[in-house]
Amino acid sequence: MPLSDATEPFDLILMGANSDLALRKLLPALYHLFCDGRLHAQGRIWTISRSITSKGDYLAMCKKAILQHDGLASLDEKNWNRFTAYIGYLSIDFEKAQGYEKLHKKLKDPARQRIFYCALHSKLYPTIAKQLASHNLITDNSRIVLEKPIGSDYKSGAMINRCMAEYFSESQIFRIDHYLGKETVQNLLALRFANSLFEHQWNQRYIDHIQITISETMGVEKRAGFYESTGALRDMLQNHLLQLLCMTAMDPPASLNAQAIRDEKVKVLNSLKPITGSDIDEHVVRGQYEAGFILTDRGNEAVNRYRDEPGVNEHSVTDTFVAVKVEIDNWRWAGVPFYLRTGKRLAQRACEIVVQFKPVPHSIFEMQHKQTMANKLVFRLQPDEGVRLQLCEKRIGHHQQVRPMTLSLKSSGEDVTRIPDAYERLLADVINNNATLFLREDELMAAWKWADPILQHWQNNDLKPETYAAGSWGPAAATLLLAKDGRLWEENN
Amino acid sequence: MPLSDATEPFDLILMGANSDLALRKLLPALYHLFCDGRLHAQGRIWTISRSITSKGDYLAMCKKAILQHDGLASLDEKNWNRFTAYIGYLSIDFEKAQGYEKLHKKLKDPARQRIFYCALHSKLYPTIAKQLASHNLITDNSRIVLEKPIGSDYKSGAMINRCMAEYFSESQIFRIDHYLGKETVQNLLALRFANSLFEHQWNQRYIDHIQITISETMGVEKRAGFYESTGALRDMLQNHLLQLLCMTAMDPPASLNAQAIRDEKVKVLNSLKPITGSDIDEHVVRGQYEAGFILTDRGNEAVNRYRDEPGVNEHSVTDTFVAVKVEIDNWRWAGVPFYLRTGKRLAQRACEIVVQFKPVPHSIFEMQHKQTMANKLVFRLQPDEGVRLQLCEKRIGHHQQVRPMTLSLKSSGEDVTRIPDAYERLLADVINNNATLFLREDELMAAWKWADPILQHWQNNDLKPETYAAGSWGPAAATLLLAKDGRLWEENN
Repeated sequence: MPLSDATEPFDLILMGANSDLALRKLLPALYHLFCDGRLHAQGRIWTISRSITSKGDYLAMCKKAILQHDGLASLDEKNWNRFTAYIGYLSIDFEKAQGYEKLHKKLKDPARQRIFYCALHSKLYPTIAKQLASHNLITDNSRIVLEKPIGSDYKSGAMINRCMAEYFSESQIFRIDHYLGKETVQNLLALRFANSLFEHQWNQRYIDHIQITISETMGVEKRAGFYESTGALRDMLQNHLLQLLCMTAMDPPASLNAQAIRDEKVKVLNSLKPITGSDIDEHVVRGQYEAGFILTDRGNEAVNRYRDEPGVNEHSVTDTFVAVKVEIDNWRWAGVPFYLRTGKRLAQRACEIVVQFKPVPHSIFEMQHKQTMANKLVFRLQPDEGVRLQLCEKRIGHHQQVRPMTLSLKSSGEDVTRIPDAYERLLADVINNNATLFLREDELMAAWKWADPILQHWQNNDLKPETYAAGSWGPAAATLLLAKDGRLWEENN
Repeated sequence: MPLSDATEPFDLILMGANSDLALRKLLPALYHLFCDGRLHAQGRIWTISRSITSKGDYLAMCKKAILQHDGLASLDEKNWNRFTAYIGYLSIDFEKAQGYEKLHKKLKDPARQRIFYCALHSKLYPTIAKQLASHNLITDNSRIVLEKPIGSDYKSGAMINRCMAEYFSESQIFRIDHYLGKETVQNLLALRFANSLFEHQWNQRYIDHIQITISETMGVEKRAGFYESTGALRDMLQNHLLQLLCMTAMDPPASLNAQAIRDEKVKVLNSLKPITGSDIDEHVVRGQYEAGFILTDRGNEAVNRYRDEPGVNEHSVTDTFVAVKVEIDNWRWAGVPFYLRTGKRLAQRACEIVVQFKPVPHSIFEMQHKQTMANKLVFRLQPDEGVRLQLCEKRIGHHQQVRPMTLSLKSSGEDVTRIPDAYERLLADVINNNATLFLREDELMAAWKWADPILQHWQNNDLKPETYAAGSWGPAAATLLLAKDGRLWEENN
């Protein structure tokens, strides 16, 4: 069975169609789904933005975005023409009623699957839901997709959830976290739950610790307006990093259905040991980048410090980096630290989950360093998705020496030309009403509940972030966070 | 530290220098050790045979054998000339005193390491030991190397051991089993004891069963004289297969020294569940090949049945195939069958140890057959040495499907042009007095003790072997041996 294909006609209403996300990710994903014949022939995509007035202008932007995404100079003319016919365009101000009237006229058939995709700031979600409702746009076949971060803390997150619940049932609300759509995250589940070799040792008896890193080389770019009030914890840790932690740490679900998976994930979130009071300074490192150098295709480029970026307050205390030592208070993970970190302007762009097994209890071989020779399983989500396994082997022709070797877990059997983008998977899922890889309300709130004390502590104590040079791996305190436990970050060697 | 190099001058006395083994294996191994500078400059190899009278004739045979072994058209002239100078040649009848007098004149310095290598039938060992002793050739620095099979049953094995013990201390007796010198067998120890991922699951909780196969495509060739009175059980099962079983099944030794390793191996042999009485027909399959076809470079070749081979009795009941279900009565292996088999004129030449893990207890993925998707670790000793691991991965772009993939555990880091032959390793070990990979007296006797009831049962009951077509995988009864447990042999796919 390939990815489930659309079996019913649908209307996908893409709100914020000229947002960075829509252009960089959603339109290319929809285009690929369309070209692969995985969107229903009677389906329709309604792209909506406020600022662009003509469909032609919008499609030109789309085309450019798709070309850039795919690294191509031109698109297949026939496919593109069919795709443009598949798209409708509306210029609407989301805060005003008249736009929704316009939309209502377009969406004639309430029997069709109807998906509202909010590629917008979460503060707009309540307004949109209310407007949709008051214009009778929400049918029994409607779903709404919400992009992260949903709210900026527990209180605002709860408020948004409450508003949504007034107009949508929980099963209609699809909270997206595109990291869950990545093939390697799916493969993490397969490697865990289809291989006794791994899952039998997936616990505190055998695992020393786990690291999850999402590092970017980009700075804040043109998003200072959003980022200044958000920061790394809200933008990445509270959602992506915690979601990856859930997939790594959850108990085996009884099945792959949405409830089973989400029940297990929320169990993990509810078992996170709260980080409060003086523990915060001990377990959390907040950083902000200084000027430095970033290695690009053009060599080392000098880059600004965060406070000098356009649109950033010169006294800003926004976190562009956060590292945290997370503990999970349950039978499986007691005593196993999960070290999470994310940041902008770091040495490399990468996303990796490192599962570090304990070293052998006693070595009969000559080992230079038992710790670094221990088995390790690394899930790499970007830039080049894949899984690698570190084992020890005997050195050929040497008596008692072993050496680490790294195996790439690549299927040589399957002929795959292209790994589908996470958004393709997730858009297909939402169109086909499969909520397995989307967040339930209780998951979101459990994540905010865990994050809130840290955010409050920073705010209340007027703490300044630690500095780090752009192009480094973050503040020295982040290295120390592991070093004081006798461990090291896996710098992607 | 590379393979330990000779630190002391030595005399290696190779008795049976024109035997099949000496020419095919020992001389090429010695030549490689010599060329690699791993034999002491003051060392000396004394080649001895009865039938060849001139050193020149013998060296010509050697050269041909080395060229054939290495698949070369010519040898490095300089190396070869140095090697021929390193070799002495003596024509001696091992059963007569005068030859030993000749040898005594050559071996002047009793302080040198002195190694007697018996590449001869084990019935000659007592005579040789006695003659060496009576000519004062056995010094404190002497060792004797004995090739398998040592004896033809418990009684004759014990007799040889007793004779040897009259003239040599146990630490001077090196019982060789060249399978233990293979790189992949060494790597088996490394993969087990340097990787927590494997060793933690190396027991009855996680392993379903283990298969060990040594299959040959060759028939009895010119060795009918030896083979008619030996058969597959004595020639392969009692030694090679049981030794591989020991390496696979032993508990972790405290160190890699000879005593620690051999203590663990003998524990395994002493824990083998005896196969006696009616269990023999249930657990052991004895086979003899009929005419058939063997796939060679030249295509399918018709070959004779065993009883029509030159030198074979037309009513022979000699086993050219044996398969056995072995159980180990200890905490680690209770309930885990070890299926061993070996035979001549089988479909492929191969030697493999298959460690089959249990399937996942519950599958949340769509699996066609849980059993065949289970993890598996395969050690291949010949023809192409290596290790492969079967894991399950998610099928890219498919929702809930997993598929098996096979990883080759090959180090990409190490630049190795040539895997040293097992005999190189073992000859270097014996020269350097490292007994780790050689069999101790109690190991040998434990193996005979286990094998004896089977041999006696066959003999006493005048049982005929099952037949199998040359070029097949053995008698149908061997397939049934696993099939009645719901399992299949791993035919090398």
